[in-house]
Amino acid sequence: MTGRVTVVGLGPGPDEWRTPAVTALLETATDLVGYGPYLDRVAPTVPGRRHRSGNRVEANRARLALDLGAAGGDVVVVSSGDPGIFAMASAVLEQLELHPDRWRDVEVEVQPGITAALAAASRVGAPLGHDFCVVSLSDVRKPWPVIEARLGAAAAADFVIALYNTRSRHRPDQLRAALDILARHRDPSTPVVVARRVGAPDESVDVVTLATVDTATVDMSTVLLVGSSQTRVLDRPRASSVYTPRSYEEPSAPA
Amino acid sequence: MTGRVTVVGLGPGPDEWRTPAVTALLETATDLVGYGPYLDRVAPTVPGRRHRSGNRVEANRARLALDLGAAGGDVVVVSSGDPGIFAMASAVLEQLELHPDRWRDVEVEVQPGITAALAAASRVGAPLGHDFCVVSLSDVRKPWPVIEARLGAAAAADFVIALYNTRSRHRPDQLRAALDILARHRDPSTPVVVARRVGAPDESVDVVTLATVDTATVDMSTVLLVGSSQTRVLDRPRASSVYTPRSYEEPSAPA
Repeated sequence: MTGRVTVVGLGPGPDEWRTPAVTALLETATDLVGYGPYLDRVAPTVPGRRHRSGNRVEANRARLALDLGAAGGDVVVVSSGDPGIFAMASAVLEQLELHPDRWRDVEVEVQPGITAALAAASRVGAPLGHDFCVVSLSDVRKPWPVIEARLGAAAAADFVIALYNTRSRHRPDQLRAALDILARHRDPSTPVVVARRVGAPDESVDVVTLATVDTATVDMSTVLLVGSSQTRVLDRPRASSVYTPRSYEEPSAPA
Repeated sequence: MTGRVTVVGLGPGPDEWRTPAVTALLETATDLVGYGPYLDRVAPTVPGRRHRSGNRVEANRARLALDLGAAGGDVVVVSSGDPGIFAMASAVLEQLELHPDRWRDVEVEVQPGITAALAAASRVGAPLGHDFCVVSLSDVRKPWPVIEARLGAAAAADFVIALYNTRSRHRPDQLRAALDILARHRDPSTPVVVARRVGAPDESVDVVTLATVDTATVDMSTVLLVGSSQTRVLDRPRASSVYTPRSYEEPSAPA
């Protein structure tokens, strides 16, 4: 008997941002596979057997999930945010590609979630209201020159830029280098949203400028949203203060 | 007495993709403001007064919502997908900028939703598993040369590219022009996900190639995901067939 593996996104934090589709899958799963702190976000009353793993063993975790599925389990792999954005969905499909025959009959599906950039944007208004890019700063799996080239291209073309995997103990200096690349194309006053642990009880969201980002306060749980030339900050309470207009023109003409 | 305006995203279609946060706001709102077909997706039992409007009157709709909020209402502005991605959140903030004093005391907030690109990606696997860009092809509010420049930059830097507002009766030929720009940088065999009405009962999601996209089948409810040089299609059932690896291993840096 062959089962299935569904890779789900819990969203960025609170249950109120988790889709009913994901909640339903969690409640009926035979097995829950994931990074320990993400599994801890699933209610203790959810009965499936939990398989916890560390943060840097995505391939092992994916193989475990597929093996449990091949044995007939209804397996849910738990990601934070959206599982398709720098997360477990690609890790599972990588294993399917490496071993095309091993899990051929296992049904594999993905269930979307709110990704961190959307949640961070919502806290301050609509900074992603126009064309934008999403870039991971981690060079664990891609060469740093590729990241530099992408940041330069995105900045030159005036995209809003969301930065994921911004800074870790192993990579303390790359965020500064990334911001320096963006600063070649953007005014120092460009708004930057620094969103740490969005949705968690200790969330912090700050609106600063490209010239005043304090990289020392940034860690792996922080997403940065760097504005385009059009992004602006209104003199309003924070919750509705930063936005990128739909129009690509100075909004001098009233609508 | 001053109320509040919350701009919410319903997600791409079914209730199972709508966050509990949004559902709760809808149920207690005094007023629901939105494009008619989006309001129709709110259960008839939801008691708030409905203010329907057409598709091309975002500024009027935003002012109506803010006026209702200023009069003390608990107003919800309804978008599809995520309200911050080419949707009503920016339209509301534009009005706040144009009239800084008129609604100063109205509390304005945004609640995120699953945006169409995430939903489309989940249907086929993880095509957005690596760095990506989101570009609207509509030149109603931005010059076409800006769109061309962004597409060229994103393609040259080897981003996966999600295209929104792909094609309408008023703009039948721009998608072809956009794909031609991408084809200067990508192999004709590059996977393209054509996702129409994702989440609706008549959803269709096709995986084609850059050379074989049939633009005549694309309309405003269609999102396209154009792969990077790394995106691949596995010999698997569709639900887990397309992905972009987390690693970027090609020896040559992107063109």
